[in-house]
Amino acid sequence: MQFGIAVFPSKEVQDIANSFRKRYDPHYSLIQPHLTIREKDEWTDEQLERAVALLEQAAQTTAPFTIHFNRFSSFYPVANVVYMALSDTKPMQRLYEAICTGGLEEPKRTYLFNPHLTIGQAMNSDELHDVLASVKSKKLDLTSRIDRFHLLYQTDNGAWTAHQTFLLRG
Amino acid sequence: MQFGIAVFPSKEVQDIANSFRKRYDPHYSLIQPHLTIREKDEWTDEQLERAVALLEQAAQTTAPFTIHFNRFSSFYPVANVVYMALSDTKPMQRLYEAICTGGLEEPKRTYLFNPHLTIGQAMNSDELHDVLASVKSKKLDLTSRIDRFHLLYQTDNGAWTAHQTFLLRG
Repeated sequence: MQFGIAVFPSKEVQDIANSFRKRYDPHYSLIQPHLTIREKDEWTDEQLERAVALLEQAAQTTAPFTIHFNRFSSFYPVANVVYMALSDTKPMQRLYEAICTGGLEEPKRTYLFNPHLTIGQAMNSDELHDVLASVKSKKLDLTSRIDRFHLLYQTDNGAWTAHQTFLLRG
Repeated sequence: MQFGIAVFPSKEVQDIANSFRKRYDPHYSLIQPHLTIREKDEWTDEQLERAVALLEQAAQTTAPFTIHFNRFSSFYPVANVVYMALSDTKPMQRLYEAICTGGLEEPKRTYLFNPHLTIGQAMNSDELHDVLASVKSKKLDLTSRIDRFHLLYQTDNGAWTAHQTFLLRG
Protein backbone atom coordinates (compact mmCIF):
# COMPACT_ATOMS: atom_id res chain seq x y z
CA MET A 1 0.00 0.00 0.00
CA GLN A 2 0.99 3.61 -0.50
CA PHE A 3 1.68 5.38 2.78
CA GLY A 4 2.35 9.06 3.40
CA ILE A 5 2.91 11.27 6.43
CA ALA A 6 1.30 14.67 6.88
CA VAL A 7 0.37 17.38 9.34
CA PHE A 8 -3.13 18.89 9.31
CA PRO A 9 -3.25 22.54 10.47
CA SER A 10 -6.13 23.85 12.59
CA LYS A 11 -9.70 23.75 11.28
CA GLU A 12 -9.56 27.53 10.74
CA VAL A 13 -6.55 27.17 8.42
CA GLN A 14 -8.15 24.19 6.65
CA ASP A 15 -11.35 26.16 6.02
CA ILE A 16 -9.45 29.06 4.46
CA ALA A 17 -7.22 26.73 2.44
CA ASN A 18 -10.28 24.83 1.17
CA SER A 19 -11.86 28.05 -0.08
CA PHE A 20 -8.94 28.23 -2.57
CA ARG A 21 -8.40 24.50 -3.07
CA LYS A 22 -11.94 23.89 -4.26
CA ARG A 23 -11.15 26.08 -7.26
CA TYR A 24 -7.46 25.45 -7.84
CA ASP A 25 -6.48 22.04 -6.50
CA PRO A 26 -7.63 18.79 -8.14
CA HIS A 27 -6.67 16.99 -4.90
CA TYR A 28 -9.38 18.94 -3.05
CA SER A 29 -11.64 15.91 -2.60
CA LEU A 30 -8.83 13.39 -1.97
CA ILE A 31 -7.35 14.75 1.25
CA GLN A 32 -7.93 17.63 3.64
CA PRO A 33 -5.51 20.63 3.58
CA HIS A 34 -2.16 19.46 4.89
CA LEU A 35 1.59 19.92 4.98
CA THR A 36 3.29 16.83 3.59
CA ILE A 37 6.08 15.46 5.76
CA ARG A 38 6.91 12.35 3.79
CA GLU A 39 5.88 11.75 0.18
CA LYS A 40 3.93 8.60 -0.61
CA ASP A 41 5.84 5.36 -0.67
CA GLU A 42 4.88 1.72 -1.24
CA TRP A 43 5.29 -0.26 2.01
CA THR A 44 4.84 -3.92 2.85
CA ASP A 45 3.15 -4.95 6.11
CA GLU A 46 6.63 -5.46 7.62
CA GLN A 47 7.77 -1.99 6.53
CA LEU A 48 4.58 -0.54 8.00
CA GLU A 49 5.23 -2.21 11.33
CA ARG A 50 8.83 -0.94 11.44
CA ALA A 51 7.69 2.54 10.37
CA VAL A 52 5.07 2.77 13.14
CA ALA A 53 7.76 1.97 15.75
CA LEU A 54 10.08 4.62 14.26
CA LEU A 55 7.27 7.20 14.13
CA GLU A 56 6.45 6.58 17.79
CA GLN A 57 10.10 7.31 18.62
CA ALA A 58 10.10 10.47 16.51
CA ALA A 59 6.90 11.69 18.18
CA GLN A 60 8.33 11.09 21.64
CA THR A 61 11.41 13.20 20.97
CA THR A 62 9.66 16.14 19.26
CA ALA A 63 7.84 18.89 21.16
CA PRO A 64 4.64 20.54 19.90
CA PHE A 65 5.18 23.87 18.14
CA THR A 66 3.32 26.68 16.40
CA ILE A 67 3.45 27.52 12.72
CA HIS A 68 2.58 30.87 11.16
CA PHE A 69 1.34 31.29 7.60
CA ASN A 70 2.21 34.79 6.44
CA ARG A 71 1.87 34.81 2.63
CA PHE A 72 0.93 33.00 -0.54
CA SER A 73 3.80 31.81 -2.67
CA SER A 74 4.66 29.51 -5.58
CA PHE A 75 7.28 27.00 -6.64
CA TYR A 76 7.14 28.35 -10.20
CA PRO A 77 9.12 27.73 -12.45
CA VAL A 78 10.20 24.51 -10.70
CA ALA A 79 6.58 23.40 -10.21
CA ASN A 80 3.22 25.02 -10.98
CA VAL A 81 2.14 24.92 -7.37
CA VAL A 82 0.60 27.75 -5.31
CA TYR A 83 0.82 27.40 -1.55
CA MET A 84 0.40 29.06 1.81
CA ALA A 85 3.91 29.76 3.09
CA LEU A 86 5.34 29.79 6.59
CA SER A 87 7.13 32.78 8.10
CA ASP A 88 9.52 30.37 9.80
CA THR A 89 10.04 26.89 8.38
CA LYS A 90 12.50 25.69 11.05
CA PRO A 91 10.07 23.86 13.39
CA MET A 92 8.58 21.92 10.46
CA GLN A 93 12.11 21.26 9.19
CA ARG A 94 13.00 19.78 12.60
CA LEU A 95 9.88 17.59 12.53
CA TYR A 96 10.83 16.41 9.05
CA GLU A 97 14.36 15.60 10.22
CA ALA A 98 13.04 13.69 13.24
CA ILE A 99 10.75 11.59 11.03
CA CYS A 100 12.57 11.12 7.72
CA THR A 101 15.76 9.68 9.12
CA GLY A 102 17.26 6.22 9.64
CA GLY A 103 14.75 3.66 8.42
CA LEU A 104 12.42 6.38 7.13
CA GLU A 105 14.88 8.38 5.07
CA GLU A 106 13.30 9.27 1.74
CA PRO A 107 14.94 7.27 -1.04
CA LYS A 108 13.74 9.33 -3.97
CA ARG A 109 13.93 12.93 -2.72
CA THR A 110 15.80 15.07 -5.25
CA TYR A 111 14.91 18.49 -3.83
CA LEU A 112 15.10 20.10 -0.41
CA PHE A 113 12.21 19.69 2.02
CA ASN A 114 10.20 22.89 1.89
CA PRO A 115 7.14 22.80 4.19
CA HIS A 116 4.06 24.29 2.53
CA LEU A 117 0.30 23.97 2.31
CA THR A 118 -0.68 23.51 -1.34
CA ILE A 119 -3.80 25.41 -2.43
CA GLY A 120 -3.34 25.08 -6.21
CA GLN A 121 -1.61 22.63 -8.54
CA ALA A 122 -1.81 20.94 -11.95
CA MET A 123 -2.33 24.30 -13.67
CA ASN A 124 -0.62 25.51 -16.81
CA SER A 125 1.62 28.56 -16.42
CA ASP A 126 -1.03 31.04 -17.58
CA GLU A 127 -3.49 29.73 -14.99
CA LEU A 128 -0.78 29.76 -12.33
CA HIS A 129 -0.02 33.42 -12.96
CA ASP A 130 -3.72 34.30 -12.83
CA VAL A 131 -4.14 32.49 -9.49
CA LEU A 132 -0.94 33.98 -8.09
CA ALA A 133 -1.99 37.47 -9.13
CA SER A 134 -5.33 37.02 -7.37
CA VAL A 135 -3.92 35.62 -4.10
CA LYS A 136 -0.63 37.54 -3.84
CA SER A 137 -2.42 40.70 -2.74
CA LYS A 138 -4.41 38.89 -0.02
CA LYS A 139 -3.25 39.20 3.55
CA LEU A 140 -2.39 35.95 5.30
CA ASP A 141 -1.75 35.87 9.04
CA LEU A 142 -2.76 32.54 10.53
CA THR A 143 -1.17 30.50 13.27
CA SER A 144 -1.71 26.84 14.03
CA ARG A 145 -0.52 24.69 16.90
CA ILE A 146 1.06 21.46 15.65
CA ASP A 147 0.96 18.74 18.30
CA ARG A 148 0.51 15.61 16.14
CA PHE A 149 1.16 14.10 12.75
CA HIS A 150 -0.68 11.42 10.81
CA LEU A 151 0.29 8.31 8.92
CA LEU A 152 -2.12 7.90 5.99
CA TYR A 153 -2.67 5.33 3.24
CA GLN A 154 -4.12 5.77 -0.20
CA THR A 155 -7.09 3.88 -1.64
CA ASP A 156 -7.37 3.04 -5.35
CA ASN A 157 -9.40 6.19 -6.10
CA GLY A 158 -6.49 8.36 -4.94
CA ALA A 159 -8.09 9.41 -1.63
CA TRP A 160 -6.33 9.07 1.72
CA THR A 161 -7.45 7.32 4.91
CA ALA A 162 -5.91 7.95 8.35
CA HIS A 163 -4.00 4.93 9.61
CA GLN A 164 -2.60 6.33 12.85
CA THR A 165 -2.02 9.58 14.73
CA PHE A 166 1.22 10.29 16.54
CA LEU A 167 1.10 12.86 19.33
CA LEU A 168 4.22 15.01 19.80
CA ARG A 169 5.34 14.34 23.37
CA GLY A 170 8.91 15.70 23.37
CA MET B 1 -16.45 21.96 16.25
CA GLN B 2 -18.34 18.91 15.04
CA PHE B 3 -16.71 15.66 16.10
CA GLY B 4 -17.58 12.12 15.08
CA ILE B 5 -16.19 8.65 15.73
CA ALA B 6 -15.77 6.02 13.03
CA VAL B 7 -14.04 2.80 12.06
CA PHE B 8 -12.38 2.46 8.67
CA PRO B 9 -12.37 -1.11 7.31
CA SER B 10 -9.38 -2.48 5.36
CA LYS B 11 -8.24 -0.83 2.14
CA GLU B 12 -9.70 -3.77 0.17
CA VAL B 13 -13.16 -3.13 1.64
CA GLN B 14 -12.80 0.64 1.11
CA ASP B 15 -11.90 0.13 -2.56
CA ILE B 16 -14.97 -2.03 -3.18
CA ALA B 17 -17.23 0.33 -1.21
CA ASN B 18 -15.88 3.32 -3.16
CA SER B 19 -16.73 1.66 -6.47
CA PHE B 20 -20.40 1.96 -5.41
CA ARG B 21 -20.15 5.16 -3.37
CA LYS B 22 -18.78 7.20 -6.29
CA ARG B 23 -22.11 6.61 -8.04
CA TYR B 24 -24.60 6.45 -5.17
CA ASP B 25 -23.27 8.39 -2.18
CA PRO B 26 -22.99 12.19 -2.18
CA HIS B 27 -20.62 11.87 0.81
CA TYR B 28 -18.12 10.05 -1.41
CA SER B 29 -15.66 12.96 -1.47
CA LEU B 30 -16.19 14.02 2.16
CA ILE B 31 -14.95 10.93 4.00
CA GLN B 32 -13.55 7.51 3.18
CA PRO B 33 -15.79 4.42 3.54
CA HIS B 34 -16.48 3.88 7.22
CA LEU B 35 -18.76 2.48 9.90
CA THR B 36 -20.02 5.28 12.10
CA ILE B 37 -19.67 4.65 15.84
CA ARG B 38 -20.85 7.99 17.12
CA GLU B 39 -22.83 10.52 15.09
CA LYS B 40 -21.49 14.04 14.79
CA ASP B 41 -21.80 16.26 17.80
CA GLU B 42 -20.71 19.83 18.59
CA TRP B 43 -17.97 19.80 21.26
CA THR B 44 -16.11 22.57 23.05
CA ASP B 45 -12.36 22.27 23.66
CA GLU B 46 -13.15 21.08 27.19
CA GLN B 47 -15.55 18.42 25.92
CA LEU B 48 -12.91 17.31 23.41
CA GLU B 49 -10.32 16.92 26.15
CA ARG B 50 -12.69 14.86 28.31
CA ALA B 51 -13.75 12.78 25.30
CA VAL B 52 -10.14 11.92 24.39
CA ALA B 53 -9.55 10.62 27.92
CA LEU B 54 -12.75 8.53 27.78
CA LEU B 55 -11.84 7.17 24.33
CA GLU B 56 -8.41 6.12 25.56
CA GLN B 57 -10.12 4.16 28.34
CA ALA B 58 -12.56 2.55 25.90
CA ALA B 59 -9.69 1.55 23.58
CA GLN B 60 -7.75 0.00 26.45
CA THR B 61 -10.62 -2.23 27.48
CA THR B 62 -11.66 -3.39 24.00
CA ALA B 63 -9.86 -6.13 22.08
CA PRO B 64 -9.34 -6.08 18.30
CA PHE B 65 -11.86 -8.13 16.34
CA THR B 66 -12.81 -9.16 12.81
CA ILE B 67 -15.91 -8.10 10.91
CA HIS B 68 -17.44 -9.91 7.96
CA PHE B 69 -19.53 -8.21 5.29
CA ASN B 70 -21.84 -10.81 3.75
CA ARG B 71 -24.54 -8.88 1.85
CA PHE B 72 -25.95 -5.58 0.67
CA SER B 73 -28.96 -4.31 2.53
CA SER B 74 -31.09 -1.20 3.05
CA PHE B 75 -32.81 0.73 5.82
CA TYR B 76 -35.81 1.37 3.54
CA PRO B 77 -38.53 2.47 4.38
CA VAL B 78 -36.98 4.02 7.54
CA ALA B 79 -34.19 5.66 5.53
CA ASN B 80 -33.21 5.55 1.85
CA VAL B 81 -29.78 4.16 2.61
CA VAL B 82 -28.04 1.19 0.95
CA TYR B 83 -25.21 -0.40 2.88
CA MET B 84 -22.82 -3.31 3.19
CA ALA B 85 -24.12 -5.41 6.07
CA LEU B 86 -22.30 -7.52 8.65
CA SER B 87 -22.98 -11.22 9.19
CA ASP B 88 -22.46 -10.64 12.92
CA THR B 89 -22.97 -7.19 14.41
CA LYS B 90 -22.08 -8.12 18.00
CA PRO B 91 -18.37 -7.10 18.04
CA MET B 92 -19.24 -3.66 16.60
CA GLN B 93 -22.12 -3.41 19.07
CA ARG B 94 -19.67 -4.07 21.93
CA LEU B 95 -17.30 -1.39 20.58
CA TYR B 96 -20.22 1.03 20.39
CA GLU B 97 -21.21 0.24 23.98
CA ALA B 98 -17.62 0.69 25.18
CA ILE B 99 -17.40 4.11 23.51
CA CYS B 100 -20.88 5.64 23.72
CA THR B 101 -21.33 5.34 27.45
CA GLY B 102 -20.94 7.57 30.50
CA GLY B 103 -19.69 10.97 29.30
CA LEU B 104 -20.01 9.93 25.65
CA GLU B 105 -23.56 8.63 25.69
CA GLU B 106 -25.39 9.90 22.62
CA PRO B 107 -27.97 12.50 23.66
CA LYS B 108 -30.01 12.50 20.48
CA ARG B 109 -30.12 8.85 19.43
CA THR B 110 -33.69 7.81 18.74
CA TYR B 111 -32.98 4.50 16.98
CA LEU B 112 -30.91 1.44 17.82
CA PHE B 113 -27.24 1.34 16.86
CA ASN B 114 -26.98 -0.73 13.70
CA PRO B 115 -23.40 -0.99 12.39
CA HIS B 116 -23.22 -0.64 8.61
CA LEU B 117 -21.06 0.73 5.81
CA THR B 118 -23.14 3.14 3.71
CA ILE B 119 -22.62 2.90 -0.06
CA GLY B 120 -25.68 4.89 -1.16
CA GLN B 121 -27.86 7.60 0.36
CA ALA B 122 -29.89 10.73 -0.44
CA MET B 123 -31.79 8.90 -3.18
CA ASN B 124 -35.50 8.96 -3.82
CA SER B 125 -37.33 5.65 -3.42
CA ASP B 126 -37.27 4.82 -7.15
CA GLU B 127 -33.52 5.30 -7.28
CA LEU B 128 -33.10 3.29 -4.10
CA HIS B 129 -34.97 0.33 -5.56
CA ASP B 130 -32.90 0.50 -8.76
CA VAL B 131 -29.66 0.50 -6.78
CA LEU B 132 -30.86 -2.26 -4.45
CA ALA B 133 -31.94 -4.39 -7.42
CA SER B 134 -28.50 -4.01 -8.98
CA VAL B 135 -26.47 -4.78 -5.83
CA LYS B 136 -28.71 -7.35 -4.14
CA SER B 137 -27.62 -10.07 -6.57
CA LYS B 138 -23.89 -9.37 -6.06
CA LYS B 139 -21.93 -11.65 -3.77
CA LEU B 140 -20.29 -10.03 -0.80
CA ASP B 141 -17.80 -11.93 1.32
CA LEU B 142 -15.20 -9.61 2.82
CA THR B 143 -13.52 -9.65 6.20
CA SER B 144 -11.67 -6.81 7.88
CA ARG B 145 -9.63 -6.74 11.05
CA ILE B 146 -10.69 -3.85 13.31
CA ASP B 147 -7.91 -2.84 15.68
CA ARG B 148 -8.48 0.92 15.93
CA PHE B 149 -11.04 3.68 15.71
CA HIS B 150 -10.75 7.33 14.80
CA LEU B 151 -11.98 10.59 16.23
CA LEU B 152 -12.67 12.98 13.34
CA TYR B 153 -13.77 16.59 12.99
CA GLN B 154 -15.64 18.30 10.21
CA THR B 155 -14.48 21.33 8.26
CA ASP B 156 -16.92 23.92 6.86
CA ASN B 157 -17.12 22.18 3.47
CA GLY B 158 -18.52 19.06 5.13
CA ALA B 159 -15.32 16.99 4.81
CA TRP B 160 -13.72 15.18 7.75
CA THR B 161 -10.18 15.38 9.11
CA ALA B 162 -8.62 12.79 11.43
CA HIS B 163 -8.02 14.18 14.89
CA GLN B 164 -6.75 11.09 16.68
CA THR B 165 -6.49 7.32 16.33
CA PHE B 166 -7.21 5.00 19.24
CA LEU B 167 -5.69 1.52 19.09
CA LEU B 168 -7.72 -1.30 20.63
CA ARG B 169 -5.51 -2.77 23.31
CA GLY B 170 -7.93 -4.81 25.40
